Amino acid sequence: MDRIIEVLKERIGEKRLDHTLSVVDEALGLAKRHKAPEDKVKIAALLHDFAKNLSLEESLRLTREYKLELDDVTITNTELIHGPLGARMVKEYFNIGDQEILNAITYHTTGRANMTTVEKIVFLADFIEPGREFEGIQIIRAKALVNLDEAILMALDSTIEYLLKKGSIIHVNTVHARNFLLRIGVGES
Amino acid sequence: MDRIIEVLKERIGEKRLDHTLSVVDEALGLAKRHKAPEDKVKIAALLHDFAKNLSLEESLRLTREYKLELDDVTITNTELIHGPLGARMVKEYFNIGDQEILNAITYHTTGRANMTTVEKIVFLADFIEPGREFEGIQIIRAKALVNLDEAILMALDSTIEYLLKKGSIIHVNTVHARNFLLRIGVGES
Repeated sequence: MDRIIEVLKERIGEKRLDHTLSVVDEALGLAKRHKAPEDKVKIAALLHDFAKNLSLEESLRLTREYKLELDDVTITNTELIHGPLGARMVKEYFNIGDQEILNAITYHTTGRANMTTVEKIVFLADFIEPGREFEGIQIIRAKALVNLDEAILMALDSTIEYLLKKGSIIHVNTVHARNFLLRIGVGES
Repeated sequence: MDRIIEVLKERIGEKRLDHTLSVVDEALGLAKRHKAPEDKVKIAALLHDFAKNLSLEESLRLTREYKLELDDVTITNTELIHGPLGARMVKEYFNIGDQEILNAITYHTTGRANMTTVEKIVFLADFIEPGREFEGIQIIRAKALVNLDEAILMALDSTIEYLLKKGSIIHVNTVHARNFLLRIGVGES
């Protein structure tokens, strides 16, 4: 744990480390609340932004080096590439083989259909950690304590809304994540 | 043409035929404006809603009969299924082999990445025909006269916004259509 934090400080800097530690706290709170495996949640939360501070150029170099197969949208966007690339990097750096942890890192920005509880918690914790501030965040925070799926549906709606307004690309995994929840009846009450 | 209208009246009813004829007018106006093949535009516009009045049950029966391969989201949604099913049906009923016409019908509701001008015009004409009324439609109508791609980007944004608010599924083709336009620089000026 101390070793990971030392590596992180060097790699992502103090400011992003502060965000990361907030995500860890938030995620552990949600893991306790929803009885999820705290060890997995903690490692995934700690490492979720491992590749975030890399330039697009460096990210692409590493993507080639690791022979990662990324879709056209992800590969042109630092905001999207750092999830899958980060998962691949921490696998290497810390010898992490647990696929659920790696998926939680891979999909923490976009979400995806049919996430496990660990993936849901890391996705949500990154979205609502105390340093975040945007319209509607309080209701998502409150919902996260009682129903992860409903909170995630709100977070996905909020993400898509934000990307629409910004004129930014929307990753299809975000849409698949939202469609999946609607199809299993989340948000119908 | 008269024969098609007779078949349509029987199949989709007077009210939807009125909408269809408005789409034809709108589409022909856009085709003239943007120098697109009017014959193709006209046939595709006339037949775009051919399968619209079928129940989901009947739509599914025909989907199986034609061995159409539709994705999970389309196949559970009459609003989405009528495009691809309609294209397949008009191929049969009117012996239409032109793939551009069939694609314009298939994708008229969702849009898709990299549409041809004929597809763009049918998609837009259905969106902005004079009977439609929603916030922001005037600016899309004005834009359609000068730049099809910019008008379509607005229409896609408006569609996604509407589906978000309604809590409805968003088809990934709609997102692919929007991402494609953003990536080729539409809407950047």
